[in-house]
Formats: sequence, structure tokens, C-alpha cells
Amino acid sequence: MNHMLKENILIKNKNDRPIGIFDSGLGGLTVLKTLMEFFPQESFIYFGDTARLPYGNKSAKTILNYSNQIILFLLKQNVKTVIVACNSASTVASEIKIDIPLFNVIEPGAKSAVNYSKNSKIGVIGTKTTISSNSYYNEIKKQNPNINIYSNACPLMVSLAEEGWIEDPITNLIVYRYLHPLVEKEIDTLILGCTHFPILRKSIEKVVGSSIYLVDSGMALAKDLAIFFKKNNLLRDKHKNGSLQIYTTDNNQHFLEVANLFLYPMKIKNIKQIDINTNFN
Amino acid sequence: MNHMLKENILIKNKNDRPIGIFDSGLGGLTVLKTLMEFFPQESFIYFGDTARLPYGNKSAKTILNYSNQIILFLLKQNVKTVIVACNSASTVASEIKIDIPLFNVIEPGAKSAVNYSKNSKIGVIGTKTTISSNSYYNEIKKQNPNINIYSNACPLMVSLAEEGWIEDPITNLIVYRYLHPLVEKEIDTLILGCTHFPILRKSIEKVVGSSIYLVDSGMALAKDLAIFFKKNNLLRDKHKNGSLQIYTTDNNQHFLEVANLFLYPMKIKNIKQIDINTNFN
Repeated sequence: MNHMLKENILIKNKNDRPIGIFDSGLGGLTVLKTLMEFFPQESFIYFGDTARLPYGNKSAKTILNYSNQIILFLLKQNVKTVIVACNSASTVASEIKIDIPLFNVIEPGAKSAVNYSKNSKIGVIGTKTTISSNSYYNEIKKQNPNINIYSNACPLMVSLAEEGWIEDPITNLIVYRYLHPLVEKEIDTLILGCTHFPILRKSIEKVVGSSIYLVDSGMALAKDLAIFFKKNNLLRDKHKNGSLQIYTTDNNQHFLEVANLFLYPMKIKNIKQIDINTNFN
Repeated sequence: MNHMLKENILIKNKNDRPIGIFDSGLGGLTVLKTLMEFFPQESFIYFGDTARLPYGNKSAKTILNYSNQIILFLLKQNVKTVIVACNSASTVASEIKIDIPLFNVIEPGAKSAVNYSKNSKIGVIGTKTTISSNSYYNEIKKQNPNINIYSNACPLMVSLAEEGWIEDPITNLIVYRYLHPLVEKEIDTLILGCTHFPILRKSIEKVVGSSIYLVDSGMALAKDLAIFFKKNNLLRDKHKNGSLQIYTTDNNQHFLEVANLFLYPMKIKNIKQIDINTNFN
């Protein structure tokens, strides 16, 4: 085997490495689904830290500690990039130091909204924690300090998505109550700042109407990632078949049910459970 | 000081010890509120393990481990009894070995429902985890194997309680959707098998009507406790004033907001935060 050939194999293997993606629990699965649709040839490793969810109410120090543990696990699986598909962990992403590319959901979502908005009025919805952390607010202001931002925490929408009450009159009523105050502010762009919310997209569209552009952070991230992968020659051969392995940190009945709802029509069969105490201490 | 007098002081001090009560988070506060109304002269220590909530999706081994850590903490505060005000932790309560009395919410709730029901048709509502754990089901069957039990998981009702959407048309609609199937089974007794649900009592009453008896587990527990305390001479002098100290394991903004909603009209000012890593490892 000559040197050139060997190098080619190495480069080829390099691109065959999986994409690592993690969340405190289930929400990141909507990001995973979008990425799998964008990159059908790629292999994915999804890590849901179900034993320690939710991250939202934990301190930045704790979230950074947990994120570093998970990223170390993903690096051992030889991933080529890490996606932080968790709004709470995204807020500490800048403090994570690794040698491979790291993406989060907040930056692409905020950037996409700033690029789209014509009247400089952007709405942001998310969980109580995401909204009170001001993470989208700060990221938008960093990119354009003149934007007006109107936020609303919509905690019930997480439960509605997990219940699967999609295209449901009750969901429409709740979404209306949460979003009407933002519509009244005449926003022209709305960031779905929680990875659960794309599941309720149809209700949201019904309430806000077609004149408000919806930013799905997972979609914005996928577009950024496509450009980055192409530029850095990191895409896998498009004739190959992708794969998916899911890991969680605690037992999986609820996870499995909601995963099959969030990844529909894909059907999840095999989830590996990682013991935090033996792996992370 | 003669011997008799010394002994009297000791006994008096023994009854002055606080009552320890813990939950994975907020729900147990409704139990606390009921107990404080029942026993205004008692001192209470409430422990909310907010850094590690929810317990529901964790394994029995993990829940037992966390419960033991918290109970050890409460014992160091010299409590005279421990109340497990958490449905998930209540399921492992029988495995907890301590020298002081231990009460949980499931047993008194189930017993009260069995005593009340005339047509042997009992409904149980709770979180997904509580319902799928069959904890109320098993406890009812243990007391009377001939009872028919109809259960429904009502996850959205937890968020509705925390949002404070009380006496709200949306809440009535959701409660109707969850409870109507149980009403159709002609239950005459309904166990509110989640400590959040007493907050939504008015909506629940509206939906099920006055012919169905609602079992509030916190209330059932308080009645049992009153009998036990009297029998064992553990009640504090009724002329004394009670007190409350709340501990949590992570930062407290959401906790504080919801605590003031759940304990209304009481106003919480001071919550102490316990570092799990230094206290529990």
C-alpha cells in the first residue's frame, strides 16, 4: 500500500466519523431529525442526559460540568463535530474547549432571525429558563443592537409537544394565549427558542399567520453546518448510508415513546443506557 | 434541678423537634401547606431536591440513594419524623431504614380512597411515571383486591399548576379531556395522585361534579399524622408558634415564584441552598 493510498483511506475514514449531538433530554431530537434529513449519508450519535434533566434550573457551573462529561464521552466515540442541541447547555458552549468543531442552537437561530427581519422586531419564545437567561436576547443584540426583541416563556408548550397534542384545538388556544402578545407587537420574525416547539409548528403557524417568519433553530444550524462541512471538506461520501445510535443516562420508556413521536416516521428500536456513576465520575 | 424536672424538659424538647418533609421539587409544598394548617404549632423543614428533579424518570436505585442522602441531612437537623412528599420517592419508602417514623403520600391516599368508595370504583390521576409505576394501584389492591381501579396520566396538569392557570377555561378543557374517561367509568372516588393537583382542585370539581369524592393525599396524610402524633405523644405544645425553613439543591428563582403560588397566602422569603457535591458525596 503506497503512501498516497494510505492517506486517502485516512481522509476517507476521517469523514466517516459520526456527528455527536447532545441534549439534556428529548428536545434535541427535533434538531437530530432535521440534521438527518439534511445529511442522510452521515452517522449520528445522540446523547440524552435523561437522568439529570432538566438542565434549565441548574447553575452554569453544573451545566458546564455535565456538558464536558458528555463531550468527553462523544470524543471517545470519535465524533467529527459536536452539536449542543440544548438551549441551556448552549449558553455555556463558549466555555467548552475542544479540538473539533462545536456548534450550538442559539447562535444560528439568532443569526437567521436577524438576517430575515425587515422591521427589526423579533419575537422569541422558549422555556422559562431560556427566556430568563436572555441567551437569545444577548446573541441578537450582539449581532445587531438596534433590533427590538419581545420574549415570552411558554412552558406548557413543552408538555403539549410531549403529549403529542398536535393540530389540537386545546393546543391552538394555548399557543394563541402565549403568542398573541408578540403578534400585537408587530414582530415579523419569531424564533422557536425551544427544541420542542417545531413539533407544534402547525398550531404556531395558524396563530401567527403567514406574514411572520418562523425560525427553527435546528434548521438554521443545519444550514450553517452544511456550509461549514463543505468548506472544510468534512462531508461523508453521499453514496453511503447514514446510521443513528442513541444513548441516554436513565431508563427509557417515556423517552422511547416521545422519541418515536419526535422522529416520526422513523422508528427507534435500540437505545443504549449509560451509567453516570461508572462513566462520569 | 431534680430528676423529674430534667425529664420533663427532655420530653418537651423532644416534641419541639421539627418535622422533616422532602420532595424532588415543588409539588410537596402542597402537602407542606396542608400540614402547616393542621399543625400550626409545629416547626417544619422542607427539602426540595431541585438540582436533581424530576425523580420520576430515574431508577428505583437512584431514587433510594437520593432519598437516603436527604433523610440523613434531615436527621442531622434533628427532625422527629420524616414525610416523603414525593410520589416517586414514596415508592421506595419501604426500603428506607431509619429510627424515627417515616410517612409517605401513597399509603394514606390509597387507604382513604378505599375507605370512602361505596361502589368499589376508584380513579387515580398522576404524572406519567406515577401512573405507569402502579404505586397507587398496588397499594389499593393490597388493601382491597376487589376494587376496580381506573387510571389516567395527566402530565399537562403539572405545568398548568406551575403556570398558575387556576380557574381558567383552558385548564377546565384540559382537565375535562383527562378526567372524562374516568367519569364515564362511574368512579365515585378520585385520588389526586400528584402533589401538584390540589392547586387545580376547583377545575377538577367543576369537571367531575359533586358526586365524586376527591382524595387529596396530603390531607389524608395529615389526618393519619394527627392520630399518630396524639397516640405517641409527639405533638408540640399548641401554644407555641410554628416555623418553616426551606432548603433546595439548586438556584431558586422558579422555585420561589411557584412556592409563593403553592403556599399562598404565605410569603416565602428565605430559602437556603445546599451544595449536593459537598453535602451528599
